[in-house]
Amino acid sequence: MNEYPMAFVTAPGRVEFKNRTLPPLKDDDVLIKVKASSICGGDIHLYKGKHPLASLPMAIGHEVSGEVIELGPAVSKIAVGDRVAVEPVIVCRRCYFCLRGEYHLCQNIGYQYSSGQGGFTPYFVVSEDWVHCLPDFISYEEGALLEPLAVAVHAVRKAQIEPGHYAAIFGAGGIGLFLLQAVKAAGSGEVFIVDLLEHRLKTATSLGARFTLNAAQEDPVERIFKETQGLGVDRSFEAVGLEKTLQQSAQSLKKGGICVLIGLFEDPLKVIFPVNLFVQREIQIRGSRGYCWDFQVALELVKNGQVKLKPLISHQLPLQDLSRAFEILLDPKSQANKVVIQL
Amino acid sequence: MNEYPMAFVTAPGRVEFKNRTLPPLKDDDVLIKVKASSICGGDIHLYKGKHPLASLPMAIGHEVSGEVIELGPAVSKIAVGDRVAVEPVIVCRRCYFCLRGEYHLCQNIGYQYSSGQGGFTPYFVVSEDWVHCLPDFISYEEGALLEPLAVAVHAVRKAQIEPGHYAAIFGAGGIGLFLLQAVKAAGSGEVFIVDLLEHRLKTATSLGARFTLNAAQEDPVERIFKETQGLGVDRSFEAVGLEKTLQQSAQSLKKGGICVLIGLFEDPLKVIFPVNLFVQREIQIRGSRGYCWDFQVALELVKNGQVKLKPLISHQLPLQDLSRAFEILLDPKSQANKVVIQL
Amino acid sequence: MNEYPMAFVTAPGRVEFKNRTLPPLKDDDVLIKVKASSICGGDIHLYKGKHPLASLPMAIGHEVSGEVIELGPAVSKIAVGDRVAVEPVIVCRRCYFCLRGEYHLCQNIGYQYSSGQGGFTPYFVVSEDWVHCLPDFISYEEGALLEPLAVAVHAVRKAQIEPGHYAAIFGAGGIGLFLLQAVKAAGSGEVFIVDLLEHRLKTATSLGARFTLNAAQEDPVERIFKETQGLGVDRSFEAVGLEKTLQQSAQSLKKGGICVLIGLFEDPLKVIFPVNLFVQREIQIRGSRGYCWDFQVALELVKNGQVKLKPLISHQLPLQDLSRAFEILLDPKSQANKVVIQL
Amino acid sequence: MNEYPMAFVTAPGRVEFKNRTLPPLKDDDVLIKVKASSICGGDIHLYKGKHPLASLPMAIGHEVSGEVIELGPAVSKIAVGDRVAVEPVIVCRRCYFCLRGEYHLCQNIGYQYSSGQGGFTPYFVVSEDWVHCLPDFISYEEGALLEPLAVAVHAVRKAQIEPGHYAAIFGAGGIGLFLLQAVKAAGSGEVFIVDLLEHRLKTATSLGARFTLNAAQEDPVERIFKETQGLGVDRSFEAVGLEKTLQQSAQSLKKGGICVLIGLFEDPLKVIFPVNLFVQREIQIRGSRGYCWDFQVALELVKNGQVKLKPLISHQLPLQDLSRAFEILLDPKSQANKVVIQL
Repeated sequence: MNEYPMAFVTAPGRVEFKNRTLPPLKDDDVLIKVKASSICGGDIHLYKGKHPLASLPMAIGHEVSGEVIELGPAVSKIAVGDRVAVEPVIVCRRCYFCLRGEYHLCQNIGYQYSSGQGGFTPYFVVSEDWVHCLPDFISYEEGALLEPLAVAVHAVRKAQIEPGHYAAIFGAGGIGLFLLQAVKAAGSGEVFIVDLLEHRLKTATSLGARFTLNAAQEDPVERIFKETQGLGVDRSFEAVGLEKTLQQSAQSLKKGGICVLIGLFEDPLKVIFPVNLFVQREIQIRGSRGYCWDFQVALELVKNGQVKLKPLISHQLPLQDLSRAFEILLDPKSQANKVVIQL
Repeated sequence: MNEYPMAFVTAPGRVEFKNRTLPPLKDDDVLIKVKASSICGGDIHLYKGKHPLASLPMAIGHEVSGEVIELGPAVSKIAVGDRVAVEPVIVCRRCYFCLRGEYHLCQNIGYQYSSGQGGFTPYFVVSEDWVHCLPDFISYEEGALLEPLAVAVHAVRKAQIEPGHYAAIFGAGGIGLFLLQAVKAAGSGEVFIVDLLEHRLKTATSLGARFTLNAAQEDPVERIFKETQGLGVDRSFEAVGLEKTLQQSAQSLKKGGICVLIGLFEDPLKVIFPVNLFVQREIQIRGSRGYCWDFQVALELVKNGQVKLKPLISHQLPLQDLSRAFEILLDPKSQANKVVIQL
Repeated sequence: MNEYPMAFVTAPGRVEFKNRTLPPLKDDDVLIKVKASSICGGDIHLYKGKHPLASLPMAIGHEVSGEVIELGPAVSKIAVGDRVAVEPVIVCRRCYFCLRGEYHLCQNIGYQYSSGQGGFTPYFVVSEDWVHCLPDFISYEEGALLEPLAVAVHAVRKAQIEPGHYAAIFGAGGIGLFLLQAVKAAGSGEVFIVDLLEHRLKTATSLGARFTLNAAQEDPVERIFKETQGLGVDRSFEAVGLEKTLQQSAQSLKKGGICVLIGLFEDPLKVIFPVNLFVQREIQIRGSRGYCWDFQVALELVKNGQVKLKPLISHQLPLQDLSRAFEILLDPKSQANKVVIQL
Repeated sequence: MNEYPMAFVTAPGRVEFKNRTLPPLKDDDVLIKVKASSICGGDIHLYKGKHPLASLPMAIGHEVSGEVIELGPAVSKIAVGDRVAVEPVIVCRRCYFCLRGEYHLCQNIGYQYSSGQGGFTPYFVVSEDWVHCLPDFISYEEGALLEPLAVAVHAVRKAQIEPGHYAAIFGAGGIGLFLLQAVKAAGSGEVFIVDLLEHRLKTATSLGARFTLNAAQEDPVERIFKETQGLGVDRSFEAVGLEKTLQQSAQSLKKGGICVLIGLFEDPLKVIFPVNLFVQREIQIRGSRGYCWDFQVALELVKNGQVKLKPLISHQLPLQDLSRAFEILLDPKSQANKVVIQL
């Protein structure tokens, strides 16, 4: 157990395992035997060598669940045997933002993977403050998905959705499908979800979406205005990261509406935005970054049955098939959604 | 049709029908053939002669649904044959509050029943602005319940519930059971519902409540703190109107929490409140009055399946049995919940 | 008095007076003897033939004050002799937004000037609902400026400024200088105001700005971060309408900060925005359109002495010099700020 | 310097000095040479033996300013010679509330004085995190008043005052006069301030209050409705702690208005509240506890000149006259406001 492999993307399209030695557990650290670890859109950006904010080589994987098998000397809230999901941030606890409880804006924020500890590996060490206990009825595979669900929950809270609000979600990938469920859990009225891929829209339908719009076949903005008596939606979510969908997210809003931006743009310096929309229709665009006290909310929504994690898992593979997992995700014919590595 | 009966409480415990002549339809009026009309807690206050704000004789009934059978000359949004629920307010449209869209605070607010038009009657006349179309899958009996649901929705919006919030509801009568559903629809985490009557708590369980607390058997505040790791709930709702439950609603709050008050107190001038709680735990109490743009939200929640109206209907009776309906409601053995008069 | 002249821009750079006949006063109309009428940035867009939303010929002028000299038959709140400022909107009072009190988003919104009644004219007719009484200590010239002040007040309310917030204002023209005062009136901490013209920054200094930044001489974003210990400002205001200042408004924000956009862009379809800033720093951009219940607030701020109108008036001219007034405004050497036409 | 005196109330009406030994400075502690220390209403509760939450003997004094004269080994933000005001809380930094930045709600909150370190003493030891640097133009006597100003700032933020709001303040003691200034700094419109003592109302007038109401001479609720066209105020503040003023604070509100409660009640278990007001007028009562990131805001308001500290200081006395200082405060003829002990 002292030496164990951990996956890195070392060059575009290239996943390699490097050996790592188990560090001693510091005061409040827990040692986790990893059970499931899923692939994020950010990992795909890295795999393609196109991550807008990070460069290669880089450890990958940050959607991690497992069983606690050892405790640091000062651990008080977690016990050996606990089934947990990991919140993979590293924050300073001392800066302006941390002291105010907004740790996702920490001036010194890091992530486990960008600090060298990826999630595709059998062991994971993290402070007890950053693990969240899973009830028995949530499997490890589902538990790994708590991280992207927390991203969606954060965006929904940022949107200040109120009961009865109409919403539109651009992008029906993993984040989009979590947004769909979180938006419905927050009491929204009609929800529109937009994508180009039919299999994603089918999953959306199975998760309760009434309006699934294929943007290859119809103009989503036109349709949204038609179905809302010419008013538009109260809230929209951009979970793609393209100029076109950003424009549509803004255009589909009701006057006074709010668009929440979650997607990162691979080519941000070329995005033209129809800027007079802001004033003419008094709309807002709000960025949503990561999560902050959102794992707790995500867990409540899963416990209540308002959010289902399992239908998003399209593939489960062993650790040695990690490269193949990326190939599956990049192959449109695979109809992949979330791909989970089991350990 | 020109003469038709309408029910009044003329003295405590006494319901009488008086004949009324159909008024001519003004510009934007619609004439409704009433199909269902349910009894509200306010009606019971009147029947007992203990309404804190109104005196006898008084028309009763304001939870009304029916079919539109005739239109005033300027009606443009409603058609003959529409199935509708009535929002029974009368507002001036010109005062400070109306102009700002807060019509429930109208300086000249009235209600249909207090202006002489009760709801236990075969015909009802109201401006098209105050009817809400019912989809086919909502029965008239359910449609009549949109009014108390709107009361609950207004309270939930006033509470500014956020996904994951823990909530406690004091009172599992009609409003309490709608609050339960609306609070869950808004994405709350654990919900506690408190009452003295076991059959009401059973209905709450069937509507998805996990924690039903019988205050005759346990101290609800103690239990709530036990189940929330000593923190208390983020939001509480007082839907009873008694000193004891008001105190418990405040005491069960997490620091910084919000209690929404919906119940009217029959004996308001004797209510002692543990007032230092406000400062010590930085809590809030917010009154919630009626509804304002809440029928629309209520309809969305019913359409989405997040709120069920039918399980609240315990009795259905014809108009001539109206007196008996009140007796049923006052008899604890009847285990009544909402009693609907069918026409 | 039955025939009187009214100014139009008939072609770029061309102001013409057309004769107009006094219409009969409808129910709640009041007839105003115009005393002062000032020139807005929108008028300059029209004069240059570059208004992004309107085409020529067009009546000009909508910042109007005067004395009420005649009343329609149903006027009840205003008396002959009242000194008033005009709120120049035309709204339907029946649409989704009007009913909710958000009349600035009215589905059928118009403005007096775009409906044919400009403000550079001796008589003005408007419903009593859209005039605001001026206390004696506010002159007519100042009263005409209530309209642009209301624009600034609306933007400040949209920004949800809290006491102690740091703010940056891009653009020290009329709106910028009103923003400066309204932001300070709302309890902000340090305020930065940015422009290219030294005389505007001098006026800003005289109005209490501590940090006046000339963007021709230093990088305002760099300076703002230097003066805020590397944090940036809580709120920024874009009151220019250029790609560069929009970018700077966003870049100067503290993480989690809010930029309010007031300026209209003459060339909106070419504006590139560094869009990953939204997610990386979790910032917001909010459009601010016109005013809605803001004249009332603007009046309170003037009555309290928190906002001064007079220092913004650089030139006062008679009606026949209207063309010259535009020339003054377009001449950088004139050091003009607000130019008021006196009648 | 190793032994120094510190003041305690040992019995009602009895102030005694006990000798204390200087503790060694822990990591981030700073040693302050106290220069000024003022008396709070809470100290008076203690002196009278009627504090609702604390029992005798008890150290007194927590409004402290001074010069930093020694640093613990890990201090990094503060230097010897810094002029500072002290924020006298003790929080755990680990509980639910601390982690979220709401340290005033800390589950383990304490105060320096209740932990044995009062403020009427020549030396004070506190972590560098809880001192706030004073600019040169703020005297030490003024600096001591930053603490009660922070209480007022917290209440004003809790009230969510918006520009133009009308407000009423019940109680023109120290907190009331700071509330007056903070409410005006936040952009309020008309402000009413109510008290029984004429000299306090005079100070209020000198601080810019337009409506000073002597409740011994007129009914403040009646007057407020008369001056607000029958609407009432948007926000009220209860800074007395009596049943009567609590009732008036609620009754003077506009429908939908918010009352913020700051005063502690000496006799809380007898307070009857007209509880149907909550629902009938949809009002809110919000408790305000202490401060949380409010010293920073308070400093901004003083730096901007929006709040003046000096006019509140009615008496300055040396440490040996502390008992006499309490007598002055309890003597209505002394017309005392804030009494500052100078060292």
